[in-house]
Amino acid sequence: MTTTINVELGERAYPIVLGQGLLGGGFDLAATLRGGDCLIVSNDVVAPLYLDALGACLGGKDISSIELVDGEAHKNMAAVESILDKLVASGANRDTTVLALGGGVVGDIAGFAAACYMRGVDFIQVPTTLLAQVDSSVGGKTGVNHPKGKNLVGAFHQPRLVLIDTDTLQTLPERELKAGLAEVIKHGAIADAEFFAWLEENIDALLARDAHCLVHAIQRSCEIKAAVVAEDEREGGRRAILNFGHTFGHAIEHCRGYGEWLHGEAVAAGMVMAARMSRIATADQDRMQDLLRRAGLPVTPPPVGAERMRAAMGMDKKVIAKQLRLVLLERLGHAVTTSDYDESRLADVLQAADG
Amino acid sequence: MTTTINVELGERAYPIVLGQGLLGGGFDLAATLRGGDCLIVSNDVVAPLYLDALGACLGGKDISSIELVDGEAHKNMAAVESILDKLVASGANRDTTVLALGGGVVGDIAGFAAACYMRGVDFIQVPTTLLAQVDSSVGGKTGVNHPKGKNLVGAFHQPRLVLIDTDTLQTLPERELKAGLAEVIKHGAIADAEFFAWLEENIDALLARDAHCLVHAIQRSCEIKAAVVAEDEREGGRRAILNFGHTFGHAIEHCRGYGEWLHGEAVAAGMVMAARMSRIATADQDRMQDLLRRAGLPVTPPPVGAERMRAAMGMDKKVIAKQLRLVLLERLGHAVTTSDYDESRLADVLQAADG
Repeated sequence: MTTTINVELGERAYPIVLGQGLLGGGFDLAATLRGGDCLIVSNDVVAPLYLDALGACLGGKDISSIELVDGEAHKNMAAVESILDKLVASGANRDTTVLALGGGVVGDIAGFAAACYMRGVDFIQVPTTLLAQVDSSVGGKTGVNHPKGKNLVGAFHQPRLVLIDTDTLQTLPERELKAGLAEVIKHGAIADAEFFAWLEENIDALLARDAHCLVHAIQRSCEIKAAVVAEDEREGGRRAILNFGHTFGHAIEHCRGYGEWLHGEAVAAGMVMAARMSRIATADQDRMQDLLRRAGLPVTPPPVGAERMRAAMGMDKKVIAKQLRLVLLERLGHAVTTSDYDESRLADVLQAADG
Repeated sequence: MTTTINVELGERAYPIVLGQGLLGGGFDLAATLRGGDCLIVSNDVVAPLYLDALGACLGGKDISSIELVDGEAHKNMAAVESILDKLVASGANRDTTVLALGGGVVGDIAGFAAACYMRGVDFIQVPTTLLAQVDSSVGGKTGVNHPKGKNLVGAFHQPRLVLIDTDTLQTLPERELKAGLAEVIKHGAIADAEFFAWLEENIDALLARDAHCLVHAIQRSCEIKAAVVAEDEREGGRRAILNFGHTFGHAIEHCRGYGEWLHGEAVAAGMVMAARMSRIATADQDRMQDLLRRAGLPVTPPPVGAERMRAAMGMDKKVIAKQLRLVLLERLGHAVTTSDYDESRLADVLQAADG
């Protein structure tokens, strides 16, 4: 069964197509391509598993491909330039489509290259990790890291289609599955208390990769994200709630060196910190922490030092006019962006990073 | 006297403010800035002349600046990265404004950096060359060259304001003034026969830098460009007419190595070639050539070889599905984009490049 979720963005609207058995020819992607050729961007881990299966969805098209080196440590301008060089070398034009086959890193890099080549060519996301399927492939954020900060360079460039074949999760390493669950749990926490409760009931089934449960979790996550993005495409306001746990999480990643902690792991610890900062019942803060712990995720930051973490938070894009803003929970299932928080509470929470 | 021309682009609309004596504090730019800080991007030729004068328009703001090396040869990703590094180093955030002070190259590079930093920050154009004032500063095209082709990497990123102080033209080298006139003449040729005739009458006054004539020529050029851009922001159709002479011109620049011929010079020779390709009276083709010659511009391509030029034209962004499209004149004052042209006529015209 295939489900379609529409991301309502006017002339930039696009469908998320979700189901099992879509790769290998189960879905006709060729019909979506504007021109006769495309470039598949993948990495050295995913390409051997799924490049041919994606090619089978592109019958009759002229396909080029490029393999990046796997990992957040290689999410940089050099990777973008290697894609641009490949596009030039293969004679790509304005009708060429770039496809991202892999996790969030591949999607972010490939999407940014597609945004820049000839000032923007079509882009299709084929996410193969849970994190990419429930989060990074939807919403049009693309970009790379700068040595001084995460995602400091990039573009908003919406895909024309997101193709999610949940079968790809069967080959996903355990640790990455758990990291993806962090973003699933985030969607419940910020926007849907009922979904959060469903996750509490089904977390073990999700960890066991129950296909039915995975489809439901991904679908609900995509619906929540699509609704938030449709309301505020370029993050002028409401969209910032999707960054719940991320200001802390990015600081963890920054202090730790990109790649040592997975993004989802850093976000998990960050969400616990953000929940502890929130003016909600301690019992709800505990529910947050317990669910993440049951998902096998870290619930405390690494011992990088409170001061270093506070400094790294100052580089966050949400720092407006030098005033740190945080995404906090008003209640479980509803997040807000605010600069109205207790500085001493922040200091307390950061102490966890003193180890 | 100050004239304002609005570029009607909905939520991305912005004014072009045009007049004499605007720099040095004659215009309050500070009021346009969203945040408290800005980065002025200029080059080693323009900064010594006008950096302080621009600073005087930004009273009370925290100003950083960076000087690029002058010239089209340095319009590359390395320059963009140097600006991004500077933004990071100066703690720039989403409310920071990037200002481009200089010619088209500075504007293209700085605009692309502004488009990419934190997925897009505000951008103000302060063009100091005639070419930038009548063409590149308006319309939101930003980007850099790739070793294999011009402007292959970039973004559409509209400025918030374009500030044109025509006094800056008094320090412009003669050769660059003439190169800018090529784009002024282009605007008459593609969209306004009456303006074309006015240019025939006033070309000597323009070369003598008559302030009144310069203001009129710049204003009419900006009006024409603004109207075309408002109709087709992302060059889905009509906007392509602004590339009249550019397919040939870019090929000349490519074969010649960026920087040896000025962009306007290559476009001048390219416009004569495009006019000769057009199904218009020979007398009108001659008017085109004569006006450009009187403006001191080249009217024949350099001897780079017809075959090399044809190959370079194949890299043009206007090649859609491998079919070369050209901007030709339907009549003097009206251009169209078409793939309906005579291949043997193209071969004849390219022969001029055989020297």
